[in-house]
Amino acid sequence: MHKKMRIALIGAGNVAWHLAHTAVAAGHQVVALYSRTVEAAEALAKEFTATQVIPTPDFTSVEADIVIIAIPDAAVAAVASQVKVNAGTIVVHTSGSLPLQVLQSINDARIGVFYPLQTFTKGKPVDFKQVPVLLEAENESTLTLLKAFAQSISQHVIEVTSEKRKHLHLAAVFACNFTNHLLGISREILLEADLPATLLQPLIQETIQKAASQHPFLVQTGPAIRRDENVIKTHLHLLQNHPQYQQLYQQLTQSIQNQQQ
Amino acid sequence: MHKKMRIALIGAGNVAWHLAHTAVAAGHQVVALYSRTVEAAEALAKEFTATQVIPTPDFTSVEADIVIIAIPDAAVAAVASQVKVNAGTIVVHTSGSLPLQVLQSINDARIGVFYPLQTFTKGKPVDFKQVPVLLEAENESTLTLLKAFAQSISQHVIEVTSEKRKHLHLAAVFACNFTNHLLGISREILLEADLPATLLQPLIQETIQKAASQHPFLVQTGPAIRRDENVIKTHLHLLQNHPQYQQLYQQLTQSIQNQQQ
Repeated sequence: MHKKMRIALIGAGNVAWHLAHTAVAAGHQVVALYSRTVEAAEALAKEFTATQVIPTPDFTSVEADIVIIAIPDAAVAAVASQVKVNAGTIVVHTSGSLPLQVLQSINDARIGVFYPLQTFTKGKPVDFKQVPVLLEAENESTLTLLKAFAQSISQHVIEVTSEKRKHLHLAAVFACNFTNHLLGISREILLEADLPATLLQPLIQETIQKAASQHPFLVQTGPAIRRDENVIKTHLHLLQNHPQYQQLYQQLTQSIQNQQQ
Repeated sequence: MHKKMRIALIGAGNVAWHLAHTAVAAGHQVVALYSRTVEAAEALAKEFTATQVIPTPDFTSVEADIVIIAIPDAAVAAVASQVKVNAGTIVVHTSGSLPLQVLQSINDARIGVFYPLQTFTKGKPVDFKQVPVLLEAENESTLTLLKAFAQSISQHVIEVTSEKRKHLHLAAVFACNFTNHLLGISREILLEADLPATLLQPLIQETIQKAASQHPFLVQTGPAIRRDENVIKTHLHLLQNHPQYQQLYQQLTQSIQNQQQ
């Protein structure tokens, strides 16, 4: 069995919510919670028996093994500068885009990164066992402890440097954030034509599965790769009231055709 | 039970392959097959006992109820001009982007559209029952027959006009073709950083599921919507050796930010 850890959390948003529930379900304790918005911290703490809400990110009076900072990337540096811990406490952030060093101002802490590579929605359960967790730590002993905690909640724990994590985050922006935007444009087109949004779901699912089993460039289909100028012209005409979608259509078509060369 | 139909096929590619197998599995007969590439036609015909390969698209000596044209969009008009059928035979194409009228040159035919909204890979089984089939026909009696055939192989049969089908096809280009391209770029980034391509799969799956359950614009995440200029700058820098990906990154970021306004 894994070692039971005492976890403290900074943040009460989606990531914090899921981490707290997952950690407690795995037998760990969430001993303390700090959030800029006290109401959110209290609402989350109420879901557990052992969780104390603290008014500042000062964990020196709390017996915590790991402090997890689970707040928006842009706020991490500022909060880190206020964090106080007892010597030897591990402090990690959960960001895909921030380096380990953003935590180096925290005195006496052993710092690391605990990046769960998933998108979380508060209240919607996620099978954390299936979520890849990317770890980084300033030294081996910290990494060992972090790994023990990570492996107690996920089956996919790997060590990734800050440099590689940046590339991974960039890849995720293309595969997820940008893809979601295209799905949104697609949805708009269906809505305007009074067509059910569900109609495309089987095709989208099959596209994603195919792209997972082979390099997507090798299974590219559609008018761009076929260089079907008639269809492309028709589509641009259909988008005439959406100059921005029209522009994206042209640029993505161009990019697909350049890739082929 | 549904009426057993005698199907003839033009084409021996992915769509023809799947339609032939699905039709025969549902108890219909594939009585004749024509393809520009005779070898492909013979290879496909060999898989069935009752299928005759014919050297031209002249179906007058064949007892077919429905002739299905399943070839690339760009070739349909030219082949249609050569098709010969007995009076009353239904002739359909399977294209998302072509109007019904592309078949009007076929003498004596009752014309229609039979558009299976899925991407097919030869040899890879697809559960056709789950594939939406979009129908159109020049009159009610033709539509009734087409519908009977379509419903014998799919549970999702709907009537969609040529005009609406164009919009649907455009929506599919955004949701599938363009999405696949972004997944390809993401894969390239992972490969270059020596990261496993499987790492992003859970996140991609969750993104697609979330986008299916709500309008994707409402669940947009990432640095663009957060207007996180530091992360955006870092990403553009990481893409410095890929000016084309860099350009797409900027345009998609811009489009997400404009959408939000």
